[in-house]
Amino acid sequence: MNFGDRLDAAIEAAGNPVLLGIDPHLELLPEPFAKAADPSVPRAERADAVRQFGLQMVELAAGRVPAIKPQSAFFEQLGADGVRAFEDVVDAGRAAGLLVIGDVKRGDIASTAAAYARAHLAPVGAGASGTCDAITVNPYLGPDTLEPFADVCDEARAGIFVLVRTSNPESSTFQGFGDPPLAERVARVVHRLGLRHVGDRGISSFGAVTGATHPEQLMRWRRLMPNNFLLLPGYGAQGAGAKDVVDAFLPGGRGALVASSRGISFAYRKDSEGDWKQAASRALDGMIADLRGALR
Amino acid sequence: MNFGDRLDAAIEAAGNPVLLGIDPHLELLPEPFAKAADPSVPRAERADAVRQFGLQMVELAAGRVPAIKPQSAFFEQLGADGVRAFEDVVDAGRAAGLLVIGDVKRGDIASTAAAYARAHLAPVGAGASGTCDAITVNPYLGPDTLEPFADVCDEARAGIFVLVRTSNPESSTFQGFGDPPLAERVARVVHRLGLRHVGDRGISSFGAVTGATHPEQLMRWRRLMPNNFLLLPGYGAQGAGAKDVVDAFLPGGRGALVASSRGISFAYRKDSEGDWKQAASRALDGMIADLRGALR
Repeated sequence: MNFGDRLDAAIEAAGNPVLLGIDPHLELLPEPFAKAADPSVPRAERADAVRQFGLQMVELAAGRVPAIKPQSAFFEQLGADGVRAFEDVVDAGRAAGLLVIGDVKRGDIASTAAAYARAHLAPVGAGASGTCDAITVNPYLGPDTLEPFADVCDEARAGIFVLVRTSNPESSTFQGFGDPPLAERVARVVHRLGLRHVGDRGISSFGAVTGATHPEQLMRWRRLMPNNFLLLPGYGAQGAGAKDVVDAFLPGGRGALVASSRGISFAYRKDSEGDWKQAASRALDGMIADLRGALR
Repeated sequence: MNFGDRLDAAIEAAGNPVLLGIDPHLELLPEPFAKAADPSVPRAERADAVRQFGLQMVELAAGRVPAIKPQSAFFEQLGADGVRAFEDVVDAGRAAGLLVIGDVKRGDIASTAAAYARAHLAPVGAGASGTCDAITVNPYLGPDTLEPFADVCDEARAGIFVLVRTSNPESSTFQGFGDPPLAERVARVVHRLGLRHVGDRGISSFGAVTGATHPEQLMRWRRLMPNNFLLLPGYGAQGAGAKDVVDAFLPGGRGALVASSRGISFAYRKDSEGDWKQAASRALDGMIADLRGALR
């Protein structure tokens, strides 16, 4: 099965489309991991605190959601030690039966793009670890820079999510440029390239990131990319709710993932009953129920 | 001195604007480092071969060119071990008096962009290493996603080079979209944001990547970004020559860097006299002479 098939099956098995983000903002981590933010602690120890947080998040996700999305930036902050922690979290996620979407937002030309694809999607040999089931990719350099990812996706049965429309305040300056806007041109390219990667279940291993903070546009993205997975950031902390994302789905609650990270992992900051993990677990239950209700 | 001042001074001191790229394509590395490409060798040993190649390239560059540009993708291919090698090459470059521009092409929203900025530009505490003088940044997400880099640039006296127009075949599909094209809009944003980062020597720490394979456009980029550094990839292996890049410069051969990597480091593939490093050294001498001639 290719990535598109595997993700569709995982969403069906979990009975929800939640993508649990693992974003270890050093200064927001709950108390057991507080030394991650302490510059007087050696970097390897700080990275280990981040690793332990990530492993706890994997435990929280396992058996409840189809996929996790660790954010590379927060691990990279602690250099090679942090990257090792990222790899360990990725490996733990896959071992726990979760699909792992590495939020790395890479992109470069030709042979360099191929190196990024091999770095994050496919093992390059003995002892390789830390490769993901899919990664996020930045399209600015052009369609030819997406093709090396396509090649590796075939070899590794992996997927990519191309940034089409993001959820930040000034995302429209470039993505909304032109008429029709640039993001639509990107969406058409993602759809065209994705046709070669449609699995037996009818959904492509090439997906798109389309921010849930622009709900009025989601129906348009769905029409432009009828058989691509849509990855929707912005739920929870960034302001979108379950009703805002419904238009992104195919019938039966298929074809989209709704991501939340801070709203789950750092729920303890607003919900002080029990420890941080109990608060996160309640927040995750709430999100799952919320989406199930909206998609029913 | 901010990064803009430091780079301007370094170009003046070297008497040339060469940016030596360090792109360890595993399968192109010369014989002493061949095990980097061998999947049967443990990953840490493969990464060490990449490290040794990078350190040799630093030695080649020191005292001859103002700056080096290691390409993260080729190091990331070997996971955390490769990232450690990247850090060591960056540290060696800075210790040798070179400015180091990390070619990482990162970009993300708000707090995540800030994490990337801290990861690659500023130490986050004791034992941190591997941070660069400047990095390349992808603008697709929007102007607000460049601002966290600006904040860190101020703290760390660092710089960024924003991708405006790249040198790959299909770069115009998105970058050339609209009329005037998207890349011009990006250029105007880079210029505007860069005004707050102009140093005593009159050039901003915010630069732009503008491919040398579109020489007819360089004068336009120069006019749109009159006090920003332009980083020109594409010289040599990608087809541009010294005469193609002249329009990008400010009077006196200032304000631009011309990058070459494969054409120098892998010159041994076309020039078999002596060892790989002698061939690379001759190629570097040739490029320096070529540019000095064209800029005279």
